[in-house]
Amino acid sequence: MTRTLIENGVVLTMNPAGDIHERGCVLVEDSRLAYVGPREGLPRDLEARRHDAAGHAVMPGLVNCHTHLCMIFGRTLATNTDLLSWLDLQMPLMRALDAEAMLAAQTLGCIENLKNGSTTLVENLFAPRSDSLSPEDSAFAAMESTGMRGIVARAFEAVRFDPAFVETPAQQAQRVRSLHARWHGRAQGRLGLSFGPLLPWTLDESMLRASRALATELGISLHMHVAESREFNRIIERHYGRPVRNVELLHETGCLGPDVQAVGVSDLSPDEIALLAETGTSVVLDPQTRLFWGTGFPALTPFLEAGINCGLATNGPAANCGQDLFESMKYACATAKTAAGDPHALDARRALRMATIEGARALGLDRRTGSLETGKQADLITVDLRQPHLVPAFDLEAALVFSARGSDVRDAMVDGEWLMRDRRLTRVDETALLDRAGELAGRALAKAGVRRPQHRTLTSQGTP
Amino acid sequence: MTRTLIENGVVLTMNPAGDIHERGCVLVEDSRLAYVGPREGLPRDLEARRHDAAGHAVMPGLVNCHTHLCMIFGRTLATNTDLLSWLDLQMPLMRALDAEAMLAAQTLGCIENLKNGSTTLVENLFAPRSDSLSPEDSAFAAMESTGMRGIVARAFEAVRFDPAFVETPAQQAQRVRSLHARWHGRAQGRLGLSFGPLLPWTLDESMLRASRALATELGISLHMHVAESREFNRIIERHYGRPVRNVELLHETGCLGPDVQAVGVSDLSPDEIALLAETGTSVVLDPQTRLFWGTGFPALTPFLEAGINCGLATNGPAANCGQDLFESMKYACATAKTAAGDPHALDARRALRMATIEGARALGLDRRTGSLETGKQADLITVDLRQPHLVPAFDLEAALVFSARGSDVRDAMVDGEWLMRDRRLTRVDETALLDRAGELAGRALAKAGVRRPQHRTLTSQGTP
Repeated sequence: MTRTLIENGVVLTMNPAGDIHERGCVLVEDSRLAYVGPREGLPRDLEARRHDAAGHAVMPGLVNCHTHLCMIFGRTLATNTDLLSWLDLQMPLMRALDAEAMLAAQTLGCIENLKNGSTTLVENLFAPRSDSLSPEDSAFAAMESTGMRGIVARAFEAVRFDPAFVETPAQQAQRVRSLHARWHGRAQGRLGLSFGPLLPWTLDESMLRASRALATELGISLHMHVAESREFNRIIERHYGRPVRNVELLHETGCLGPDVQAVGVSDLSPDEIALLAETGTSVVLDPQTRLFWGTGFPALTPFLEAGINCGLATNGPAANCGQDLFESMKYACATAKTAAGDPHALDARRALRMATIEGARALGLDRRTGSLETGKQADLITVDLRQPHLVPAFDLEAALVFSARGSDVRDAMVDGEWLMRDRRLTRVDETALLDRAGELAGRALAKAGVRRPQHRTLTSQGTP
Repeated sequence: MTRTLIENGVVLTMNPAGDIHERGCVLVEDSRLAYVGPREGLPRDLEARRHDAAGHAVMPGLVNCHTHLCMIFGRTLATNTDLLSWLDLQMPLMRALDAEAMLAAQTLGCIENLKNGSTTLVENLFAPRSDSLSPEDSAFAAMESTGMRGIVARAFEAVRFDPAFVETPAQQAQRVRSLHARWHGRAQGRLGLSFGPLLPWTLDESMLRASRALATELGISLHMHVAESREFNRIIERHYGRPVRNVELLHETGCLGPDVQAVGVSDLSPDEIALLAETGTSVVLDPQTRLFWGTGFPALTPFLEAGINCGLATNGPAANCGQDLFESMKYACATAKTAAGDPHALDARRALRMATIEGARALGLDRRTGSLETGKQADLITVDLRQPHLVPAFDLEAALVFSARGSDVRDAMVDGEWLMRDRRLTRVDETALLDRAGELAGRALAKAGVRRPQHRTLTSQGTP
């Protein structure tokens, strides 16, 4: 048995009581947490490797509930255009990825998440599939090799999307079953599968019902973009030929429930919020990406008042250009306060819960991860508090949400294994990966015929 | 003469043409920029110290146009309360600062700015004054010792504010003259003085006119909070006993013009925006702090369309808890897009101009700093692009605004002197300062009788 004792840090457990141990100890035995609490609770002569966390917060690894790592090479492209122009630029780039480029992109995305303190992520995968390229297998391989805890949420597009992405319901069911058999629960339970429609208008009611049946049969969750904007609901009305709203549609077809993650929810009626609450559906909020598109942002207060479980997410690196869940926490508070016109709307503690235990609960992983509690898997990070922007930090939770950023994460552990120590990755040659990913990205850009955009719009041309 | 050649980096000049040199050179001679451009423009046998910036962006140091470093010990306190409850907590803490604590606070604030890439800042100083404590002298001393370029904007409160802060117009004039004589233009022009009312209702029309006359006489600028929220304009109406809006009041009393910085502007009518444009007044935007208070945020588009010069600011560390102007750039774009409902509302290039040359222009420092152009002072930073969250960076400007953060700044130079190299400060013992500042902050908290706040509001108590 391998024993590691992480000592002298401030331990934020994120357990139900919200316990914080000022000079706490975390004992890791193999892949699990064997003890979390004050030093007095441990025998004096304990034999263990010591990890000195003095001056650091020790907290659960963050849970990034929604991203699209397959699009990482499109980071910084079309940062000031509407969604359709953005897709016009991003889609050819995705089509230009071969198997090596796809794997490099997803591996790069995994380590970006890890270096920012996320130890669990959901890769919502929509990408061209071919005989020589299975983006899902590639995503699982990236998670397996980097050591991340991860779920691949396979996106389904039956109609109205890019021809290279479309598949029939039968194909989707066959592929979901195959992926489930090969990957779900692999790497000692670190890897998991979920699926769902990419967008509500890329399929029909019968396919929604079939998806629900398949998810229930396999015991995996449904993950989907829901009501991201007003435009979303308008397109749904047109596509389904009747005045139905997104959440109503999901309710009719059985696609709500505790095993469902509704991502991006920005245009919901009070009735829809009540439906989410009644069915125990989790929402996943990506505040900085909402602002990035300028499509408005969800008023979080109604979710909180309805008692809905809220996960947080960065969304894809091609959307808001980053994968920093610390940034998401600050944006969540900022947007909640602004939407409500009330500085009490969302506090630091709740934002931290969203980024950890609530995210884990949304993904059905709360027995394994999301808090530091005895018996759970040892997924944790340390945050270096000895920096000018974190002094003083009388309120540690506020400091973590409002002052800290992903670069303050010093060490990261998943399943008891250090994946990063003192900001150096233990499994990946970071320099080699960055160099190779940069080359492959450049090659994909050239192959796609995408010109580097000239950001010379009115706002940058005029005086001053 | 000392010569330093910074080579192999991507040089963002922020000059009027927006030139970017892919593998550019910056030659520094003593305190000034002697050359900025491609390598071919330099003699081969140039004798100079070499600084290899391969893999880095080389760009002007950022200009943080508004902060309150004197409040840094209040960081993380009252992060989810309204402004008045926040002041109730912050003011006793400020009153508890002795001379050593004030100097430590301001020095800490200077190095936090520096480590985040700001080489120029404006310390808007409102603090209790006494025989044993001159916060303005202390702020200048902090800037002088850390090597920052800085302006102390002395805030004036004649009425209706905290008794420990209030002074008569005669006292203010005498003290402004004295500070001007002792500090303005010191340290080879690195230090400067400005002043203005803290809030429009802490004085009256005659004092506004007197302030304008004094500023004009001394040739220094006016710096003030303007129309930060709707509440602001309501208080002004009550205080002045007539339906006058903030910018109108300033116009009537001569307090607009190219030497004026209007900070926080969030509730302006179209007429007021036109007045700002006609008079050449600069605005200073602090987007993340607007969201922090939940009081709404300015629609930037009208400022841009009116051709108004826009500086950026973090505001004080006790408000949004940070001093990262990279964060301000991203929030500026995010809020501008959201306010306009239009993803084109503010692009990365313009946000970068706001954080550099427009900020410098707002402060009357654009001949000295804010861009890399021959003859200007050598104020610059390097940004390390060889990190997972900055690969790829096809659009460098977008990468700097949307993906980079203060911690990516590797080196910082002011007036030709390296103040930070490889993230180590050259003038300040950072560890000793952090330790001492932490101690003094704890002592001030105890002296002020401020309890560490328990962030246990409804939003953190309820399920989940």
